[in-house]
This record gives sequence, structure tokens and C-alpha cells, in this order.
Amino acid sequence: MTQENTTDGAISIAPFRYALAIEYVGAAYRGWQLQAFDKVPTIQAEVERALSVIANHPVQVVCAGRTDAGVNASHQVVHFDAWVERPERAWVLGTNVHLPDDISVKWATEVPGCFHARFSAKERRYRYLIYTSPSRPAILAGGVTWTHRHLDVELMQEAAAHLLGEHDFTSYRAVGCQAKSPVREIRRLDVYRTGQLVVIDVSANAFLHHMIRNIAGVLMSVGAGERPTEWAREVLEARDRRQGGVTAPPDGLYFVDVRYPELFNLPQAPLGPHFLPSSD
Amino acid sequence: MTQENTTDGAISIAPFRYALAIEYVGAAYRGWQLQAFDKVPTIQAEVERALSVIANHPVQVVCAGRTDAGVNASHQVVHFDAWVERPERAWVLGTNVHLPDDISVKWATEVPGCFHARFSAKERRYRYLIYTSPSRPAILAGGVTWTHRHLDVELMQEAAAHLLGEHDFTSYRAVGCQAKSPVREIRRLDVYRTGQLVVIDVSANAFLHHMIRNIAGVLMSVGAGERPTEWAREVLEARDRRQGGVTAPPDGLYFVDVRYPELFNLPQAPLGPHFLPSSD
Repeated sequence: MTQENTTDGAISIAPFRYALAIEYVGAAYRGWQLQAFDKVPTIQAEVERALSVIANHPVQVVCAGRTDAGVNASHQVVHFDAWVERPERAWVLGTNVHLPDDISVKWATEVPGCFHARFSAKERRYRYLIYTSPSRPAILAGGVTWTHRHLDVELMQEAAAHLLGEHDFTSYRAVGCQAKSPVREIRRLDVYRTGQLVVIDVSANAFLHHMIRNIAGVLMSVGAGERPTEWAREVLEARDRRQGGVTAPPDGLYFVDVRYPELFNLPQAPLGPHFLPSSD
Repeated sequence: MTQENTTDGAISIAPFRYALAIEYVGAAYRGWQLQAFDKVPTIQAEVERALSVIANHPVQVVCAGRTDAGVNASHQVVHFDAWVERPERAWVLGTNVHLPDDISVKWATEVPGCFHARFSAKERRYRYLIYTSPSRPAILAGGVTWTHRHLDVELMQEAAAHLLGEHDFTSYRAVGCQAKSPVREIRRLDVYRTGQLVVIDVSANAFLHHMIRNIAGVLMSVGAGERPTEWAREVLEARDRRQGGVTAPPDGLYFVDVRYPELFNLPQAPLGPHFLPSSD
């Protein structure tokens, strides 16, 4: 019975593989991933505990992208292997009964054994939400990044243009980032206002550790007028994390989509979080 | 020193009167108002406690509209009398330091002694947010009303038209409502989609107890196809609460604006909550 716990590779002996989309608020958790030490709340632990009740055996999940402490998701995708077949409705509604209020399964679907939530993904998409106001937010506190500074969205968009395309993002990744290569391809990086929020939309094949929060930190400095728009490019070209700006807080960061090859035929959902207009 | 606590009337002996706008999430509270019994958390108790620290004497506040347990506000207005003069900045930023994360002061301004947050108000405005999805929300859980039913917004808007204008809203008020007259004037009642939310925008001179949640309950039944659009009018004309629909949950209800005569020159803010496009 130990083989069922080897889902981190693509091959499993268990007969059923399911993919799930999960929405969560990160504020109460130490991030996605199970920690080596006990008793630390993580999204993964909650999801595995709830799925194990429905499966009636221990379940391990593999996610599309691990999120840090405090980071949110409107559309994280995971896969897991099960020894039992259950209707999709059971994996969604049944699991939700066993999850806390700040985590919810959105859809579930059976996938072939070659599907891998992380390795099959072709593109990830995040949104970063900034609330600009003289006083702190009470509504969605912990779900937006608050700044009392006025941000010029046009300047931020100009700075963002320097980061589009394939680059060595060494200056924008955490010093402790474990990825082998610092090269990533940013396919979209848009900055705009909606309601009283400034939104940064970013798509890439994949992201480095802290990459979006470091980009957000640079764009916010530019938007506040502290740095010129070219600074985004200068930081990029320095290939030195110490030349970068501050790492923006996790509060406003949402994992909103991950794309897989069409052959897997996964359900699509409007870009979240649900209270924002879907800009796609 | 007891006279400072008589702010419920329009006249106070204290030399300074301030108006404040407050944003809050209602989920953790038993509503706005102080309860007769102890130890029940209310927004009013938190606000008075924090203001009393800044004023350095006990403060009592009067609000524009009392909200029930679980109801939210992006722009509740209160007034209070103080024996000390403080800069507006102190009443905002200083008070926020002493408030929990789910309550925040947005602005403060000195007002003449004849200003009364409740009696001077000419119009109140609320928004009701409905998240329609097969599975429950994790993001903003407790801050939206969730339904798994599909809602037809055009049908809801048709039904809403029957409620515009001055009417006897007996069928739409709580049985225990204390208001002397059941007549209110609805000046605006719009239903529309934004993001994955259905929004009901409603303005009136004033509202009866549970009036908006009872209207939302009727509109949701119509939107789900359980009742014809004319039912909203039939309920109205019955003048009997027992003919009405269910009272919709408090989760999705936001107090978003209150208007006063221009001579008071109070600060205006975009309609909240901050993550929605301001439709005015």
C-alpha cells in the first residue's frame, strides 16, 4: 500500500487519476506545500485530508504551481491518484464539505495517467491586486496589497514592456530559488485599473520563486514615481537580485489560471478572482 | 461628565462634532449596534473603543444606518462628539491602529453641531452581491451570497421595476420591524452582472428592517425561474410579510453610500466595495 503515495512521478499503480481546480485564500496558511515539521497549516495538507475522506484511502496531490505563505489562488490545478472511482460531483461537493471555508474545489475530472499537474502545464497566469488608498482596507484585508501611494498605471505599463519575452530573470528571483535555469518567457504583462484596484496580469511558461512579487515591487516603485520606467530593464540586465526592488507582499497575489495541452480537455473557467471582470 | 454620552439627540454640550466614514466586514460581528448583554462583538463597540483611545475620553457614535449581523459596509457614516480637537489624520490613521483588521476608518471631518449621521441623511445606497456557481466560494466567503442556481438578470431587472417609487413595503419588512411607517421611496433598483457576480444596486430615502434582503430573496426566486416577474408586484400589493419570499443571507449585503445635504460638504468616495467598478 505504499505505492499509492508515489504520485510525484508521472506513473502510478493506482488505476484512477483525477485533476481538480482549487480556489483558496492564503492568509491563514504557510503556503501550499506540506512542511517537514508538523502542525503547520498548509493548503496541501487540508486538500489531502479532505480528499482522503472521499477516497477512503490516503491521497497525495501534485499541484501546478506551489504558492508561498499568504498567496491566494482562484484556479490552482492538482492531480491525484485514487484506488476508487467516484463521480466528479463527489470529488467536488463531497470534498468541499470536508474543507475549511477558505478552500474550495471548483471542478474535478478524470484524466489519463500521463497527465501531470506540474509537468504537463504549458502556461501559468497570475493576477496581482493593489489597493491604493490613504487608509487600509477592511474588506478583503489580506486579499489585496495596500499602498497609500498614488500609482501611475501608464508608467507601470511602460516599465512592464521591458520584461516581455524570454529573459534571464536572475534579478527577479529569490536568492534561494531552486530552479535550474533563470530563463523564463513572459508572454503577457498588463497593468490596468478596475474599481479602486490596480491590477497586474502576468502570463509566462513558468515562474521563478518570488518572481511576480519582485516584478510587482519594481512596478510599484515606478508607478509611485520613485524610479524611471527604464529601471525595470536595468534591473533585468544586471542579473543580480541585489539590484532589484523590494519583494511586494503576498496578500495581493492570485494564481488564476494554468493551461494544458488541449488533448487533456480540462474544464475552462472565467479568470478569477470571481469579483473581477474577466479580461480575456 | 455624563452629558458627553447623550449624543443620540442632535444637541451636545461637547464642543467638537466629527463625522467619519467606516468600512467593515460584518462576518465576525453581531451587527452594528451595541447589545444589551455583554461580550457580544459589535462594530459599534469596536469603533467606540478605538475612538475613545484617540479622544482620551469615552466616545459614543451614532450611525447613518444600523446593519444586521453579518452585513458589510464600504461606506457607513457616523458622528460623535469630542471634548478635544484632533487633526482629521489622527481620527483616521490613529483610530485604525486600534481597530481590528476587518474595520477601517476611511475619512474624518469636523461637522457643525446640527449634523446628525442618521437624521440628516437624505438617501442610503446598498449593494447586494450574489456569486452564482456550482461550488461554494473560498475567496470572499462570507462577503458574497452564494447560490448554485443560474440567475437570469433580465428577469430580475423586470421584477425590480415593480418596486421603484414610493410604496407601502409591509410585505418586504421584517415582522418585528420597529419603523412607524412602512412607506419608503426606492429611487433606483438595478440588477447587473460584473465578473462572476450578480449585483443588485438599490437606493432609497431609507430602508425598513430586512427590506433589502427580502427584496433580494424575491429577485433571486424570479431570476432562478421559480416565480414570474409580476410576483414582485403581487408581494408588494399583498401588504403581508407572509406573502413574501425568503430573507436572503446577510453575507452579500454592503452599505455603500449615504447622502447628506450639500451644505455639510462631506467627502465623497467611489462606490464600494473597492473591488467593484463604481457604476455611478
